[in-house]
Amino acid sequence: MICLMPNNQRLKKVYAQLAHQRLDGLLVCLPANISYLTRSLSRDSYLVASLKGNIYITDSRYTEEAKACLKGIAVVKKYTGSLFKTIALTFTELGLKRVGFESRYLPFAEYQKIKDSLAQGIDLIPVHSIVESLRQIKEEDEASKIQAAARITLKALDFIRDFLLPGVKEIEVAAELERFIRYNGAAAHAFDIIVASGPNAAYPHHITSSRKLREGEMVLIDMGVDYSGYKSDLTRTFFLGKINVLARRVYNAVQEAQARAIRQIRPGVLSNKVDAAARSFLAEKGFDKYFGHNLGHGVGLEIHEAPAISPKDTAALEPGMVFTVEPGVYLPGKLGVRIEDMVRVTREGVEVLSGTID
Amino acid sequence: MICLMPNNQRLKKVYAQLAHQRLDGLLVCLPANISYLTRSLSRDSYLVASLKGNIYITDSRYTEEAKACLKGIAVVKKYTGSLFKTIALTFTELGLKRVGFESRYLPFAEYQKIKDSLAQGIDLIPVHSIVESLRQIKEEDEASKIQAAARITLKALDFIRDFLLPGVKEIEVAAELERFIRYNGAAAHAFDIIVASGPNAAYPHHITSSRKLREGEMVLIDMGVDYSGYKSDLTRTFFLGKINVLARRVYNAVQEAQARAIRQIRPGVLSNKVDAAARSFLAEKGFDKYFGHNLGHGVGLEIHEAPAISPKDTAALEPGMVFTVEPGVYLPGKLGVRIEDMVRVTREGVEVLSGTID
Repeated sequence: MICLMPNNQRLKKVYAQLAHQRLDGLLVCLPANISYLTRSLSRDSYLVASLKGNIYITDSRYTEEAKACLKGIAVVKKYTGSLFKTIALTFTELGLKRVGFESRYLPFAEYQKIKDSLAQGIDLIPVHSIVESLRQIKEEDEASKIQAAARITLKALDFIRDFLLPGVKEIEVAAELERFIRYNGAAAHAFDIIVASGPNAAYPHHITSSRKLREGEMVLIDMGVDYSGYKSDLTRTFFLGKINVLARRVYNAVQEAQARAIRQIRPGVLSNKVDAAARSFLAEKGFDKYFGHNLGHGVGLEIHEAPAISPKDTAALEPGMVFTVEPGVYLPGKLGVRIEDMVRVTREGVEVLSGTID
Repeated sequence: MICLMPNNQRLKKVYAQLAHQRLDGLLVCLPANISYLTRSLSRDSYLVASLKGNIYITDSRYTEEAKACLKGIAVVKKYTGSLFKTIALTFTELGLKRVGFESRYLPFAEYQKIKDSLAQGIDLIPVHSIVESLRQIKEEDEASKIQAAARITLKALDFIRDFLLPGVKEIEVAAELERFIRYNGAAAHAFDIIVASGPNAAYPHHITSSRKLREGEMVLIDMGVDYSGYKSDLTRTFFLGKINVLARRVYNAVQEAQARAIRQIRPGVLSNKVDAAARSFLAEKGFDKYFGHNLGHGVGLEIHEAPAISPKDTAALEPGMVFTVEPGVYLPGKLGVRIEDMVRVTREGVEVLSGTID
């Protein structure tokens, strides 16, 4: 458990949301949400947040660390028998009557066990996005950590250029990157590094294999790191040797699509408008049907979080949002190009957290 | 998606279990369970398994690969709108009436969405452990993959010995291991590698930090790899320089506790008896109160799966089970020792899948 200074502002915003929904407590289930509210890395725990008190429930492995970290934020309760009975009993002890729970993360079986242990007169109400919507807007120290994660990633992508030679295996490229990021301040990768060479890059979610890089092909690398709990997510597409005409055409189109999308970003703009700026440019070039995924997603304590930047998302951008902009064109059996950067919405417009290295 | 030969034996066992519980279909939710039944690496999919047909539901990213991989096992259905409506409609199309779902893995919100879309006369019944209990017993090819994963891990632990020098950071040890395993046949780590030096080893779930190794201290390394989807999980505790008396005493006790537990393993023995063999020896030595976790857990497609080897688990061991045996002693502020090997229950007794390197 890595603990930081308490910050009850986040909890106060949760209480306001609870009051608005006429709830008197919230069972926080998603580890990233608990980490956010407690400003500590949380594992195998539940948090009951309420104006009547915050109780952090965990087992003997984490109790001592939690007590040290959560001073001023929550009382730590160690459970030994049934976790679910302990949760239900906590509601009673706090005098809660209408408790929300994060229904997107609590498995049905756990819900059932808590419900079966509830004292009479207590209702358990499914809710969602209370903490996630707060997490969308990054505070300064959060943005700094994300930027530090992005910098390590850029450094790794720069370092790896010299290693991309014909005959090297995709998995060996990943091996060198995995080593490099840990020597350069990252705690871990943010997700399994994708190294996709030649036709493998046509699969947006390729699993790094033992295929060898070849002269005249492209290599797509999609990677991110964890820095102090915060993640980065960047993609670069490299060339080995001479670039053929098709590859250059696709690359230029993706690059311009990304630039057009980024130029749209400022507070108040709807997220689907940002997506459309990239998608419509790719349509002009005849490549839109080869761009099958969303333009971007939020990044923070989780590698995928709110907001989504997609054709169907119509939320207005707000200052402090951090997300990826990652158009891609995938030609089956041939090649794939994706360029992914991370941006932050500012009061005036947009800041690209990851400079380009291409 | 990595696909292998179809094997309907696994599905047939599921159908038998369904008949036994008077169900006519199962919504398989856990990715590892879907991977097991389809013998393909499954991501972002659901499987409806039934005697009336098996339907694999996924999105456009995975549809083509899935069609190629699942021939003879399941029909692939691509969803575009609501996943949950698609699942409910699939029940109707197959003519299912009583459908089990894996309640430990389906979030409440998803359950609710499927339930709200069900046609009249279809019941959704919470079930658990149908596929997990099959997965406990490893087939020969599964055991071979687990053994291959264990061998790569042992090789890495042997390689790293020369690197464990005073002044080297924990995270740098992890960096070298991360690189090594990928050059030696692993697709990835099975979980974040734990490198815990000196007093850090007193936390069984320490997060690898930038602390430097010191002369005269111990270093605990807990790691595993992914080989063809199957995992390994091993721990070794190394010494830097001269071993002090306390550390030696703890180490010998843990080593002997492990040996005693392994000697108990054979078909028919209850898992808590295996746990007791280690725990009671540590009690003789006065160390049992510093051994706060279970003795072991199953390993396979997931890093933690059935069976659990703990004081409260009373399931009888069966040939083909693969699990860890990992006693540990953690002296707060001082040191921690854990030795973890992987074993397979054979017809006659036990096979240690990981030779010891100490």
